Amino acid sequence: MDLYSFSQSSTAYRVRIALNIKRVAHRIIPVDLTQGAQLDPAFAAVNPARAVPALVTDAGDTLTQSMAILAWIEATYPNPPILPADPLERARVEAAAQVMACDVHPVNNLRIRKRLAAMGHEQEAVVDWMIHWMQDGFAAFQTMIRPDTPFAFGDAPSLADICLVPQLFNARRWQMDLAPFARLSEIEARCLALPAFDAARPENQKGA
Amino acid sequence: MDLYSFSQSSTAYRVRIALNIKRVAHRIIPVDLTQGAQLDPAFAAVNPARAVPALVTDAGDTLTQSMAILAWIEATYPNPPILPADPLERARVEAAAQVMACDVHPVNNLRIRKRLAAMGHEQEAVVDWMIHWMQDGFAAFQTMIRPDTPFAFGDAPSLADICLVPQLFNARRWQMDLAPFARLSEIEARCLALPAFDAARPENQKGA
Repeated sequence: MDLYSFSQSSTAYRVRIALNIKRVAHRIIPVDLTQGAQLDPAFAAVNPARAVPALVTDAGDTLTQSMAILAWIEATYPNPPILPADPLERARVEAAAQVMACDVHPVNNLRIRKRLAAMGHEQEAVVDWMIHWMQDGFAAFQTMIRPDTPFAFGDAPSLADICLVPQLFNARRWQMDLAPFARLSEIEARCLALPAFDAARPENQKGA
Repeated sequence: MDLYSFSQSSTAYRVRIALNIKRVAHRIIPVDLTQGAQLDPAFAAVNPARAVPALVTDAGDTLTQSMAILAWIEATYPNPPILPADPLERARVEAAAQVMACDVHPVNNLRIRKRLAAMGHEQEAVVDWMIHWMQDGFAAFQTMIRPDTPFAFGDAPSLADICLVPQLFNARRWQMDLAPFARLSEIEARCLALPAFDAARPENQKGA
């Protein structure tokens, strides 16, 4: 299958990690958002919403929205699991993941930063905006995960870790102080030591 | 079970609809966000993140994040379903729902409006901001659903309709022009004619 991806997109990064964890054979097709490649008619034909990630399955179906893609990957390639089978445990993992996917990432992404700039805000104010929401989200996330497991919810990475690591990449990119979030940095280090996460890193994408 | 809810919260509105569709016995506990009731220590003990919705199950477990709560409700009370069983169809419904849950709602909610105001923007600019993202999201949603079914994806409401209707409530609240989104308004009218949706409306909450 084909994953339309941009190295620095944290939503594409989530899907790259999951495909690697599940060992799903796939091809990465880079879409350079900084060059406007999402506006290319060839890509618009794949995903009319002109956004990454977009996953084209072997049957030729195109899936969009990273969290829906991740759920489809989990349902289609159940091993190793990235969500617990028990509905209550699953809801806890999903809720932590959604702090990143709903509360943090959407309010900080490129279109929002561009809009704030168009409204007259300097880069410094935009960075303050991003860090403010990351601080809120990271603090909430830290209270929602287990306090003492190797990964956010246990001995193996889950959807929560898959959403955390790309958001921490963003945090470092904007030079956020991560000292109050030591548990999250520890989990991140443990994740990035795994080949599935390492190969998905923005720095390890072609042309990065 | 107990649902901590605020009449005008569109994420609580989603959960109210789902509990009604599934005919799950529950009590609504109002948390008036306009009065700062989320800061009350009694509520903070229920949900340290001080946000609605929070669902306390009959076993005493507290669930947060509306999309995780909805997934738990679907897994625990499968009938009638709000998601298709087939993973691909399910991913399509989830992707449409996530346009509302990830791309539209988070960038327009109360904390963002307050922050924009604190950054010096007048109410008019804040309303323009909200309408801008709703226009983007509604246009995407409209291309992702079926063109000719009674509800977004078929003959019965799904997670996509459950996320759409509360967002349309917000759109009307801010007097957005919905003329370009006739299909969405038609679906909304069909949903609101159902008792499960009608009873969940902000206007039909106690003290509204």
